[in-house]
Amino acid sequence: MTSPVRIVFLGGLGEIGRNCFCLEVEERLLVVDCGLMFPTEDMPGVDLVLPDLRWILDRITDLEGIVLTHGHEDHIGGMAFLLKEVSESVPVFGTELTLGLLTNKLSEAGVAQRAELHVVADGDRVRAGPFEFETISVTHSTPHAVGLAFHTPQGVIVHTGDFKLDQTPVDGRLTDLPRFGTLGADGVRLLLSDSTNAEHRDVTGSETLVGEWLTDHFNRHDRKRIICACFASHLHRVQQICDAAVESGRRIVFLGRSMQSNTTLARAKGILDVEDEDILDISEIDSVPPEELCVVCTGAQGEPLAALSLMAAGEHKWVTVGESDTVIISATAIPGNEMNVHRAIDGLIRAGAEVVHAGIADVHVSGHASGPELEFMLALVRPEFFVPVHGEYRHLVAHSRLASRLGVPEDNILVAEDGDIIEISDEGVDFADMEAPAGYVYVDGAGVGDVTGGVLRERRRLADDGTLVCVVVVDSRTGEVVRGPEILSQGFLRQEEEEKFIEEAAEHVVSSIEEAAAEDALDLTTLNRHVRQALSRFARKRTERRPIVFPLVIEV
Amino acid sequence: MTSPVRIVFLGGLGEIGRNCFCLEVEERLLVVDCGLMFPTEDMPGVDLVLPDLRWILDRITDLEGIVLTHGHEDHIGGMAFLLKEVSESVPVFGTELTLGLLTNKLSEAGVAQRAELHVVADGDRVRAGPFEFETISVTHSTPHAVGLAFHTPQGVIVHTGDFKLDQTPVDGRLTDLPRFGTLGADGVRLLLSDSTNAEHRDVTGSETLVGEWLTDHFNRHDRKRIICACFASHLHRVQQICDAAVESGRRIVFLGRSMQSNTTLARAKGILDVEDEDILDISEIDSVPPEELCVVCTGAQGEPLAALSLMAAGEHKWVTVGESDTVIISATAIPGNEMNVHRAIDGLIRAGAEVVHAGIADVHVSGHASGPELEFMLALVRPEFFVPVHGEYRHLVAHSRLASRLGVPEDNILVAEDGDIIEISDEGVDFADMEAPAGYVYVDGAGVGDVTGGVLRERRRLADDGTLVCVVVVDSRTGEVVRGPEILSQGFLRQEEEEKFIEEAAEHVVSSIEEAAAEDALDLTTLNRHVRQALSRFARKRTERRPIVFPLVIEV
Repeated sequence: MTSPVRIVFLGGLGEIGRNCFCLEVEERLLVVDCGLMFPTEDMPGVDLVLPDLRWILDRITDLEGIVLTHGHEDHIGGMAFLLKEVSESVPVFGTELTLGLLTNKLSEAGVAQRAELHVVADGDRVRAGPFEFETISVTHSTPHAVGLAFHTPQGVIVHTGDFKLDQTPVDGRLTDLPRFGTLGADGVRLLLSDSTNAEHRDVTGSETLVGEWLTDHFNRHDRKRIICACFASHLHRVQQICDAAVESGRRIVFLGRSMQSNTTLARAKGILDVEDEDILDISEIDSVPPEELCVVCTGAQGEPLAALSLMAAGEHKWVTVGESDTVIISATAIPGNEMNVHRAIDGLIRAGAEVVHAGIADVHVSGHASGPELEFMLALVRPEFFVPVHGEYRHLVAHSRLASRLGVPEDNILVAEDGDIIEISDEGVDFADMEAPAGYVYVDGAGVGDVTGGVLRERRRLADDGTLVCVVVVDSRTGEVVRGPEILSQGFLRQEEEEKFIEEAAEHVVSSIEEAAAEDALDLTTLNRHVRQALSRFARKRTERRPIVFPLVIEV
Repeated sequence: MTSPVRIVFLGGLGEIGRNCFCLEVEERLLVVDCGLMFPTEDMPGVDLVLPDLRWILDRITDLEGIVLTHGHEDHIGGMAFLLKEVSESVPVFGTELTLGLLTNKLSEAGVAQRAELHVVADGDRVRAGPFEFETISVTHSTPHAVGLAFHTPQGVIVHTGDFKLDQTPVDGRLTDLPRFGTLGADGVRLLLSDSTNAEHRDVTGSETLVGEWLTDHFNRHDRKRIICACFASHLHRVQQICDAAVESGRRIVFLGRSMQSNTTLARAKGILDVEDEDILDISEIDSVPPEELCVVCTGAQGEPLAALSLMAAGEHKWVTVGESDTVIISATAIPGNEMNVHRAIDGLIRAGAEVVHAGIADVHVSGHASGPELEFMLALVRPEFFVPVHGEYRHLVAHSRLASRLGVPEDNILVAEDGDIIEISDEGVDFADMEAPAGYVYVDGAGVGDVTGGVLRERRRLADDGTLVCVVVVDSRTGEVVRGPEILSQGFLRQEEEEKFIEEAAEHVVSSIEEAAAEDALDLTTLNRHVRQALSRFARKRTERRPIVFPLVIEV
């Protein structure tokens, strides 16, 4: 019997974000990606969401290393949090750019020394303990992304990573379709493939189409300053913006912290090709006429503190947007960010700018393969078993349907979710009987995991109806109110109405204590219950709302 | 000099929702629409948003009547709140269906008797005091919508209302283009036109295209139950769903309160044509095989308590969704609702259903005219002056650009916003020097206007970081702490960490009081400030968060 191989899915199967899985061979671990997720609107106050990393940390001595497919936050953003928890340095494998982007993040968190970096080139074959894997070039919305082929005792496992099939990529670096094909010809046991756009029926456009649009647009607007926002990690987009800028006689200003650090890194690595003389420091922005300028900035998702939103609010230190500006938002809003993006657009238009966005022009293409390309990949690799990864549940199901239509037997398609463990053995591929802890781990300020679902429920309740606090000092023998009630409210009523409300509420509180006294029920639990009920009822009757009520009876 | 005419915009210019404006002639008022807006995510706990109606209520004796263009919530949803504030009944003009939908709302609120209903037919010319207006048939996503032409001392003002140019509408009732053209030929002083889709370049499809898709799809899925969600006021969509259901041998179950009341109303008015024998009561749902059923329900926006979301969560009383179901969401998500719709889709797919939605199939068309149709309307009416209405700021600006391209002089295009007043006089059309109060009026529970922007800011702060309450009883002479500190937290930390935090925080509070005592600063203001600072600082240092701190020092 050949030893089984396990895959433990810790994140990214059931949501877009916090991608992370463990490959296990002979009791050893290889982690693939460790990303974060941005919070949704039902997670107030949360800064980031991480995978639950206990599965890895509890067996940290078994860890052979971490392989990163590319440098997006949803694939590397959890690394600093993982490395904070380890004492010895961990081998980390990735392409040069991916590790460069990682290093920037780790240095900010002060844990760069805990990563033992191993640069891998496209097609490299790497050994780490019992693991052997090769990298396969793929195109995506950040340069130098790779898929992976794991050569395991249970056959070859191919993981596409995030990919699209861009046949005319900006840097000429193609998805290595021949290698995927060779692996397919030799026999692939299991394919894991990117499901993000599995519901889409149109082929994802090539990045160079956006470049053509940009060049046209920049040349047509030769009397205006151009401000162009995009993802800072989308260095091919940045390249095309810079090319269009230079061609239309403009100098380039990079704006926003990540835009500056990523472009500096990419230029040093030879990935972004912009001449020094074409770049202007932001402090010199007024030395050049508007029509000779192109500002490349962050904030394409309407993030409130990013460069673009500050400009939209008229609060940017260096850039005041006006009628001489054309603003291009070269991205689409990630679900949940629409309102922020709309707010930024409205602010910019109000300031007088022309704003071109994905809702009205072809300023963006996705970085993920659509249905037809996913079918192409399935037909090329012809896996025996298939697990759709990287997507919300409906994306995974849509992808599994594509696989089924392409002839993968229903029984060989596993729709796995976070926490699921699949086992590849001589018998086949199936779910293991156990699950890994895989809940959301919230980061809020300095805390990692100290905010839980229960805390968020409380926060949502506080936000919905506010809170009332009532302190009253009671004589423990007679039940007489000796001080108070003092009632404080927050997020409940505007001041004018609050005063009257509090006055009347206080009377209800006093009556409730008198009732308790009449029944000789003067223990603190009973008194607090009376006060809570009196206040809650009065609030509900008067306002039809349910503020959180804190009673605090003090006995003297 | 001819007497001037004023238009006072109370809502809908700067947002989608709460449409309302006043026309003023000779000191008399005619109100056009009185709608509500649904709250966005930055308005926690808010149920609805209304226009500020003070402009109308302060001059209620001048009110000649209210004209309603159609029965959507963003045009009639504020009526009950307006009528609650008046003592005498108000003349209300609208088509039969519009007034029927209104009556349902007013009856729920118990104010139906305060509306003096006047049914108007297409093309009717109505006099009310110094006002004279005619209704003009337009197509939209609810039947019997009308545009309006006001014949005023300052010439004709045309208001399109919400419209699209559906040349093959379900009921055959076309937009009365000849009438718009005749008005244009005779001279239109001012045009107000729907800007919702002004940024879109493709013509909005006909409603009957959706019907064709539905019929195809229903026939192809002849082994499955079909559950179809759409807006309850979109009675042409409902008609087409019912037609497809009957044609594919199904009986129809209407589900959801507004779906039931609207279809009952529309059938009574002859607007919805479904035979009694084709309708099944929900309680009989199990008496018919799944493939002979079509459930038509509410919840297409993922509203948490609507029928579809309850099915998605497995909590619907009558309908359990499973593998024998195809669910069609025949709508697109309104910006801000995407996450709720995705949640519903995921839940339904998880339950085993196939889900078809606007992201993957042609199950919906918009009810609003796109760029080319707006141009057509401008070219037909050829107004001297133009004010884009009904849209967020960027939509209004996009529409104003269309008008400019079509030859309306720049100076004759006014981009007005909520609160703006425009005056039409012998001199032309221009902004008046004054503004009307036009802020958001929030409805929360029983309160209208008692939640303000400041209260919502507090709620968002409570939601972001929670709250800490600290009560401490101090001897007013010595500064000695005689009881407490008692610290309560909500939405701040999970319980395990909270206990330790509170213990340490209490020490900081005691120290802060000792410091004050050492300085002999024992007044309540100083003590409360010390306690607040001590707690805030400790929280920030320990967690990097800023909970709202309530100190409450009691002196004995």
